[in-house]
Amino acid sequence: MEELYKHIEEHQNEYVEWLQDLCRIPSVAAQNRGMEEAAQKVLEHLNLHNKADTKLIDTDGYPVVFGEVKGKSKRVLSFYNHYDVQPEDPVDLWDTPPFDSEIVDGKLIARGSADNKGNLIARIAAVHAYQQVYGELPINIKFIVEGEEEIGSPNLEGFAEKNADLIKADGCIWEFGYKNADGRQQVSLGVKGMAYVELTCKGANTDLHSANAAVIENPAWRLIWALQSIKGENNRVKIPGFYDDVLDLTHQDVQLISELIYSEQEMKEQLDINQFVNGVEGEELKKQLIFSPTCNICGFESGYTGEGAKTVLPSEAKVKIDFRLVPNQDPYKIVEQLRTHLDHHGFEDIDITPMGLEYPARTEPDDPLAKSVISATKNVMGMEPTVMPMSPGTGPMYELCQKLGIPAVSVGVGNFASNNHAPNENIYIKDFIDGIKIIARVIDDFAKH
Amino acid sequence: MEELYKHIEEHQNEYVEWLQDLCRIPSVAAQNRGMEEAAQKVLEHLNLHNKADTKLIDTDGYPVVFGEVKGKSKRVLSFYNHYDVQPEDPVDLWDTPPFDSEIVDGKLIARGSADNKGNLIARIAAVHAYQQVYGELPINIKFIVEGEEEIGSPNLEGFAEKNADLIKADGCIWEFGYKNADGRQQVSLGVKGMAYVELTCKGANTDLHSANAAVIENPAWRLIWALQSIKGENNRVKIPGFYDDVLDLTHQDVQLISELIYSEQEMKEQLDINQFVNGVEGEELKKQLIFSPTCNICGFESGYTGEGAKTVLPSEAKVKIDFRLVPNQDPYKIVEQLRTHLDHHGFEDIDITPMGLEYPARTEPDDPLAKSVISATKNVMGMEPTVMPMSPGTGPMYELCQKLGIPAVSVGVGNFASNNHAPNENIYIKDFIDGIKIIARVIDDFAKH
Repeated sequence: MEELYKHIEEHQNEYVEWLQDLCRIPSVAAQNRGMEEAAQKVLEHLNLHNKADTKLIDTDGYPVVFGEVKGKSKRVLSFYNHYDVQPEDPVDLWDTPPFDSEIVDGKLIARGSADNKGNLIARIAAVHAYQQVYGELPINIKFIVEGEEEIGSPNLEGFAEKNADLIKADGCIWEFGYKNADGRQQVSLGVKGMAYVELTCKGANTDLHSANAAVIENPAWRLIWALQSIKGENNRVKIPGFYDDVLDLTHQDVQLISELIYSEQEMKEQLDINQFVNGVEGEELKKQLIFSPTCNICGFESGYTGEGAKTVLPSEAKVKIDFRLVPNQDPYKIVEQLRTHLDHHGFEDIDITPMGLEYPARTEPDDPLAKSVISATKNVMGMEPTVMPMSPGTGPMYELCQKLGIPAVSVGVGNFASNNHAPNENIYIKDFIDGIKIIARVIDDFAKH
Repeated sequence: MEELYKHIEEHQNEYVEWLQDLCRIPSVAAQNRGMEEAAQKVLEHLNLHNKADTKLIDTDGYPVVFGEVKGKSKRVLSFYNHYDVQPEDPVDLWDTPPFDSEIVDGKLIARGSADNKGNLIARIAAVHAYQQVYGELPINIKFIVEGEEEIGSPNLEGFAEKNADLIKADGCIWEFGYKNADGRQQVSLGVKGMAYVELTCKGANTDLHSANAAVIENPAWRLIWALQSIKGENNRVKIPGFYDDVLDLTHQDVQLISELIYSEQEMKEQLDINQFVNGVEGEELKKQLIFSPTCNICGFESGYTGEGAKTVLPSEAKVKIDFRLVPNQDPYKIVEQLRTHLDHHGFEDIDITPMGLEYPARTEPDDPLAKSVISATKNVMGMEPTVMPMSPGTGPMYELCQKLGIPAVSVGVGNFASNNHAPNENIYIKDFIDGIKIIARVIDDFAKH
């Protein structure tokens, strides 16, 4: 592998330029900007640099770029990535323009650099380097690059169902991955699921003068009482059955958690908070982060929210909630339980609109792909990665992988302060090059299992 | 008086035009729009049409327009009105633009038409008509027209203290007044007080990806739990001491309430609601409307409230609450009790910003001004008005009147569906003309007491 690593280092300027170019395309799916250009650019990379068989697969939204590179064995490794990015606003908080793709102090600053173009190009570069040095790949590689991850992958489930054979694989490298603050690489083996719902409570058919509050029901109050019935001050979800399917932590889970690092003091200082939810710390804090389902208010709106005072009795109140789910919870069942719970508490009138339901997904630490990624990371970095049994985040991993029996592992080129979804999104060039090496090594190692 | 009524009818187009013109000025105090223009226009009316001695009296906010018209006797009747209006949003729910001042099917539709420009112009028109027909007024009239009623009259207390002699009067016609659904005029003899507060709860110093919700506190949840501790599903305020100063209803109160009409079925149909707060009806409903203090959510905002789903953990949550208070409650004491209550429940971190504190106020039904207004209304309308012992609404009546020993009575040109503070605010032209006649008659009648 030394020859391969050397090749990657010698060609690093070329690979960085590929990434800078791709990051200059403002492919914001939510705003339908630069999407076709980005898809074409990815297609071009796969054709030109990986000699892949490619196709653009239509969906009801933006197409999926698919590429396949044949190898010596029948074994198949897939890469799941996306060519869309988050909107760049607030633009004035960026140190350099979000789509200028500038390198400052060894860091590439650009929207999409960490999420997710850095990982995509690192994987294309790894395949390219392998082919340049050794010729044929030892295994088959499949690229699945969607264009709607940042808007909740609304068409990926349909895509996976229609193309189940095409995307079949023995393992999948998931889109994201980060380094800890201590410089160790993080390998994560799953994602939480999600039930994102909007609750709407209506009162009178028009906003009223608030003098009427003595006799006309206020939907904001009703929604607050309903929410209070859903989660109390101990942060425990009160919907009957909510925790029924949650699995107990295994000995191995506890072991993995104990090896994780969560920089409590740094987080407190950075976010200006005094404590974490329920005052937890240490092992409990990490357990809660990784293995607790959540019920989070993403947004609440009712009545007059402008400057100053307005005495109004609102006609409507809305709340957006995301429940993050852990194995073995079922988002569809959670929404049903929520409906039953609200009805039971006299809130039949509160409407539930599901806005994104995703199953949780996990891969076991002793899975061959997990082992390959862990050992490749150790080989490249010279130290053990930390292994997250599951990410606290969410993604369509279940639909694309677990549902089809494919294990999935996350490893990538981001860092703990990559500012995904925020101003000054960035990756270190050094991490990008290491990331290329890790993927090249995984390709080599996964052939042996 | 027939000659006077005839004059008013003959000049109704002129008076309606005065009102339409004034309603075209978007004098939104909360947003500092059109305020100077509106004050100047009122000043011009008083100078030109009432030959009043006028002055613009500076306050720490918008000035008070003051006008005095001398009459034959020493008796003084004052009119309290305001030239500011509520914000017009949501604009898309208006049938005609809020400041176009259009007349549709005999109704003037405009922000401020009912609250409060219709009443102000009706009083100016009444004085004008009286002068045109009879020359000198029988009593002195004082116009007190402030510019901050819709933002809680923050400077009226100071104004009243500094100008106690100037505003001295034997009675004051208060700014508002409405017709019932059955066409009977309502005369009301007091206002509820108010404690308007904004509560702010802060979490981390920036919005976060909602995957962090497992360990980082959500300020929207904390605010919801705090609100739940303030008022429960039975609509009873749970702040200790909140009801301590509330007076028992007298026999006369119960009598007045029994004569009031509240069109339950019409209200339900008009507002598309099934029942009133706590399911009350009949006498209980009217008692609750008039004599219950309230705790109303005027607005709640936190996190992402746009279209679709965004997975965010908000850094802040805000709620605007108005407590309507009844005699003998004290708004300053209520805010203190709220602070103590929040602290006691572990919400020391939730900030309270008072945004308007007003005492409740009442005038007795056998007061001479009350009698004048009741008889004038009967004379013009041909039927007895209903007498509200107190309005469910609020105003700075205590500071401007009761504190200085001045009785205050409300009568005006609105209707039961005038949509004050809401889209399609309106008055009937017919009610506007009747309102001018009533005031002209009161001027005549009050001279005799």
